Amino acid sequence: MSPFDHLHLEIPTSKKPRIVIIGGGFAGIQLVKSLKNSNFQIVLLDRHNYHTFQPLLYQVATAGLEPDSIAGALRQLFEKHKDFYFRMARVTGIDPEKKHVKTLIGDLKYDLLVIANGSKTNYFGDQEMFEKTFPMKQVPQALDLRSHLLQNFEQTVLSNEEEEKDRLTNFVIVGGGPTGVEVAGALGELKKHVLPKDYPDIDFDIMNLHLIDAGPRLLAGMSEKSSKKATKYLEAFDVNVRLNTMLKSYDGKDVVLSDGTTIRSKTVIWAAGVTGNIVDGLPKESLKGGRIVVDEYNRVNGTQDIFAVGDIAGMYSEEFPKGHPMVAPVAIQQATNVARNLGKKDAKAWKSFKYKDKGSMATVGRNKAVVDLPKFHFGGFFAWLVWMFVHLMSIVGFRNRLVILTNWLWNYMTYDRGTRLIIRTFVRNKHYKSGDTL
Amino acid sequence: MSPFDHLHLEIPTSKKPRIVIIGGGFAGIQLVKSLKNSNFQIVLLDRHNYHTFQPLLYQVATAGLEPDSIAGALRQLFEKHKDFYFRMARVTGIDPEKKHVKTLIGDLKYDLLVIANGSKTNYFGDQEMFEKTFPMKQVPQALDLRSHLLQNFEQTVLSNEEEEKDRLTNFVIVGGGPTGVEVAGALGELKKHVLPKDYPDIDFDIMNLHLIDAGPRLLAGMSEKSSKKATKYLEAFDVNVRLNTMLKSYDGKDVVLSDGTTIRSKTVIWAAGVTGNIVDGLPKESLKGGRIVVDEYNRVNGTQDIFAVGDIAGMYSEEFPKGHPMVAPVAIQQATNVARNLGKKDAKAWKSFKYKDKGSMATVGRNKAVVDLPKFHFGGFFAWLVWMFVHLMSIVGFRNRLVILTNWLWNYMTYDRGTRLIIRTFVRNKHYKSGDTL
Repeated sequence: MSPFDHLHLEIPTSKKPRIVIIGGGFAGIQLVKSLKNSNFQIVLLDRHNYHTFQPLLYQVATAGLEPDSIAGALRQLFEKHKDFYFRMARVTGIDPEKKHVKTLIGDLKYDLLVIANGSKTNYFGDQEMFEKTFPMKQVPQALDLRSHLLQNFEQTVLSNEEEEKDRLTNFVIVGGGPTGVEVAGALGELKKHVLPKDYPDIDFDIMNLHLIDAGPRLLAGMSEKSSKKATKYLEAFDVNVRLNTMLKSYDGKDVVLSDGTTIRSKTVIWAAGVTGNIVDGLPKESLKGGRIVVDEYNRVNGTQDIFAVGDIAGMYSEEFPKGHPMVAPVAIQQATNVARNLGKKDAKAWKSFKYKDKGSMATVGRNKAVVDLPKFHFGGFFAWLVWMFVHLMSIVGFRNRLVILTNWLWNYMTYDRGTRLIIRTFVRNKHYKSGDTL
Repeated sequence: MSPFDHLHLEIPTSKKPRIVIIGGGFAGIQLVKSLKNSNFQIVLLDRHNYHTFQPLLYQVATAGLEPDSIAGALRQLFEKHKDFYFRMARVTGIDPEKKHVKTLIGDLKYDLLVIANGSKTNYFGDQEMFEKTFPMKQVPQALDLRSHLLQNFEQTVLSNEEEEKDRLTNFVIVGGGPTGVEVAGALGELKKHVLPKDYPDIDFDIMNLHLIDAGPRLLAGMSEKSSKKATKYLEAFDVNVRLNTMLKSYDGKDVVLSDGTTIRSKTVIWAAGVTGNIVDGLPKESLKGGRIVVDEYNRVNGTQDIFAVGDIAGMYSEEFPKGHPMVAPVAIQQATNVARNLGKKDAKAWKSFKYKDKGSMATVGRNKAVVDLPKFHFGGFFAWLVWMFVHLMSIVGFRNRLVILTNWLWNYMTYDRGTRLIIRTFVRNKHYKSGDTL
């Protein structure tokens, strides 16, 4: 007997056709917003009851923010929507013939389906990495990492063995994209400004941060200028940037790199990439490169009534042979376009999707960030202000903004991190399946 | 091999005699504060790395606050103390002959020992209650309860069976002391102001709150007037107050009360009492009534160099035949007195402890509280303001005050609760040993 036997996924019928949206990420919530007061009944499914503002997840992992700053309860976001239903349910597959979404608590009929369930950590099939490294995609994962890294320092104080101390205080971050860079910068700040006050008995020279990337430069999606600046900023925070380097093996104690170097570390943070959360039941020809192939209207190849939006959607074109970048602005713009198209009675009035790249940015700790605008790059303190302003304005909900701003001001003025609490004791090898509700 | 084999509890020797303090609760942190710049080396041991402001724990459980509001990292509190050492360690016993504290990571020699490890949930030996009810003494427990109660409502929406819906939406709180009253009031507020907005498909008439107490009135430690007022306020929040009633049995589904009533409920909150966290190794004659018997200087019976302070200390006298109330003000005042006495070279200059009862209070949700001063009782809105002010001023750290105030203002103005996040999935019967680090 499953623990969910007494639960049933039933939604009241409506005169309006029903759109089922899988996933309450950036794409999903934008769809619900844009479809407010439309001629559809909207059902949103997510295995969590909250939306996660992933760009700031690394601040939860590094003791800067609590989850309530960056997560918003989905029901709360859409309290005023009519004919809208949220259900906390894990989708296990879809049946395009029957027009059913399958979940752990039963099936649900759709008229139109939007798959917006994003991406998950990509271990490239490496079971060892999956079991032994820390991912950074979900709130519980970030909280685990926070507890783990603080626990490491409590244990360092209690250790006499040099090797053990090395393993506890060395951190290896795999992947030099924005997440890897931002985590490395935040750890550098902790090393420089926060931890030495807490642990006067530790000589922080033993704490080493390594950011490794297989490619020739950091932030491959940004300009070369920004890559260089970010590298320089990270080095000022004592981060060892190791380019053209791959992680060869990791047994939970020692990292072996492709250049032969061995780094003792109990903490490897895996930010090497993401891959689409493919749903079971789609025709094979609609899957490519770990994403769901869609046309220029985000309609899934070979279907009429299924859309895929955001990270999961592979809209392959000459301009984007690998599909669009897996970032929030693409998800939001695609969702807006799909909602607009679905509002038209005549499919001839549909607009095809055009990505407006408004630029990209990454922060590298206190006072330092890089910003790429289409025709202009800049870095340093002003970039850092822009980074903060854009993130603050992008997050949903005035309460989140208020809490984040309060925390940022506090952290900035006091060189403090307010959430240095070890609440989730981390048990090695008791990792969760990626994508599990923890 | 234990996972802690590589860790050792060693503290640099000092010319000053060493005081080891067990527990970073109200008594423990007051001792460290009062002993600043004293002629002692201070070692503080706690199994958590943070101090918990327990009076507001119920707000974490009811989605009003995140843990960072009410918990403060212990290292951070004492950053500027000299010859002070914090170690995260679980004490397993003491050896008064050798003058050793025993922990999972080794023994530590003391010159003076202060036992300040407080109290734990008292199940009165009932294994069923221990396994099936929710305690409310620690941050992880409060977070579990928060996730569990929100999960209940997500499941209610998915259920067709009346009995099941009853079990998910009925809450039974056992114990009419301040914790029980405050949890019941907070749940009443959730029912009245918060949850109906989130769950328009649930008829909240089915949600029933029951507060049961074995005695003839609530808040037995307060005045009769306050008991009556609190009862009236709770009833206005739709709480069924059941006095002279005991919980007879609970199988995780149905509560049977001593008057024969059966209440369907998956959520029983156990706030029926606490008992001292007795440490192994003390002479038998020093234990009584679940506490450690101390003289008027808080010195443990039959010892010269061991003190017990706060909830754990039983200072039995004519005025307090059962010892002092197990509340924060007693702990703080005793700690202050012990620190003052230890500062005197001559034990003849020691002062005996005199409890100054400054009054007590309890809040019952929005705009409602009761306050007992030594010669004066009052309730209602003004009492509620006083309650907030006193709690805000009592909490350690300006950051905690700032975060709590921001949250309270927000919650008050918007009738909102910002932390409605289901982060720790609760697994029935996977309860922790009371007192475990979770």
